[in-house]
Amino acid sequence: MKRLLVIGIGAGNPDYITMQAVKALNRVDVFFLMDKGQSKDKLIDLRRDICERYITDHPYRFAEAHSPERERGEVDYTTSVDDLNRAKQQTFERLIDDELADGQCGGFLVWGDPALYDSTVRILQAILADGHCQFEFEVIPGITSVQALAAQHKVPLNTIGRSIEITTGRRLAAGQVSDTDSLVVMLDAEDSYHHVADPETEIYWGAYLGTPDEILISGKLGEVADEIERVRKAARLAHGWIMDTYLLRKP
Amino acid sequence: MKRLLVIGIGAGNPDYITMQAVKALNRVDVFFLMDKGQSKDKLIDLRRDICERYITDHPYRFAEAHSPERERGEVDYTTSVDDLNRAKQQTFERLIDDELADGQCGGFLVWGDPALYDSTVRILQAILADGHCQFEFEVIPGITSVQALAAQHKVPLNTIGRSIEITTGRRLAAGQVSDTDSLVVMLDAEDSYHHVADPETEIYWGAYLGTPDEILISGKLGEVADEIERVRKAARLAHGWIMDTYLLRKP
Repeated sequence: MKRLLVIGIGAGNPDYITMQAVKALNRVDVFFLMDKGQSKDKLIDLRRDICERYITDHPYRFAEAHSPERERGEVDYTTSVDDLNRAKQQTFERLIDDELADGQCGGFLVWGDPALYDSTVRILQAILADGHCQFEFEVIPGITSVQALAAQHKVPLNTIGRSIEITTGRRLAAGQVSDTDSLVVMLDAEDSYHHVADPETEIYWGAYLGTPDEILISGKLGEVADEIERVRKAARLAHGWIMDTYLLRKP
Repeated sequence: MKRLLVIGIGAGNPDYITMQAVKALNRVDVFFLMDKGQSKDKLIDLRRDICERYITDHPYRFAEAHSPERERGEVDYTTSVDDLNRAKQQTFERLIDDELADGQCGGFLVWGDPALYDSTVRILQAILADGHCQFEFEVIPGITSVQALAAQHKVPLNTIGRSIEITTGRRLAAGQVSDTDSLVVMLDAEDSYHHVADPETEIYWGAYLGTPDEILISGKLGEVADEIERVRKAARLAHGWIMDTYLLRKP
């Protein structure tokens, strides 16, 4: 039987890795790396760094594949992600078939936590359900950018006894969010915090969290929204990419 | 200046601890332990175990204080938590004043992640705002029971492009939740999943997550709700306490 480990490596800071993840890294024979083009090279490098830093007693190699890209523009978002995941599923099946021998262990290194806005677990479950390919797999949780954000701003995610909603920039922009007083927004490509009506709402914003390039801004939306937009645009230009997250708290 | 570290030690499995937390543990001179009575002794023991396991090169001691209890019964929940946090604030101030010398480092070991349904960060911010007591503090995130739950069930927390709500059993029972398709419930003392109307809703339930006593049950609510109630009751009797979490996913 082949075995796969889906390993959450945390968000940004190599010290976010858990002991469980370090032990898992040291069991892997082949790491599957998905190349997402130049803008994500830094993320691939961070994965290689983590292997070099933490793997002490096990030989390993990398198997790279070109990661299919999501179709942007006219097509519906869920459909485009579904299509993308089907293409990824074929890539994963090929990697597991071609790169892994029986009895070997393959590893997927997932930014943050595999349970939060990542498709690896969903795709592996789909492969097993299709029955093309047999394997066992384990999931190792990791520190998410949401947790890094709260820690760096020294702020709880929830208010006393209340709910937290974790959502996407796309949903915030479309008004598809609940009236919770603690809203965490991820995957926001469009400065969707401008869609929040109340300027007294507090925002805790962070980019490149846990890395040396980390930027933190917090304050009332009415006072800091334009600053965040400006800083965000400049950082994206300077780095070629940006990963940011924010917490919105109602007054 | 005194320094405080609020260290997330993860949920249950000592291997959930991060490298960042291990480094933080090794900077602490005095760990503040809050005694919550017999039922939580096991949690205090786990904190001591973590110190023994991971602190290699720094002398440390424990300072214990009796943790105030929340008033139950008639009083409003938020008021009772507010009162509790004021009492805890006094306890924390006394510990910081009496047990820590200038230049020393104090540590709070928080189950899971300090940002999620924990009061330590809120109380430290309140102490600083009151100005009675001066210190600097840092927050170190940890793996939550929500992440352990998703990892052990090998399930993503979100569906594609949708939101996640994290809430309490109290709010679920009171119908104070949004119509999100992924609802995570914590702090449920009352089997509140019985309040979900649709028996086709999938539940992913876990207790004592990440520990040798871990129990996992999943399935359609109509088929497994009674089993969960039975297993939960028996486990609580056997252990004297229970910590459980679940994900509800709409069909």
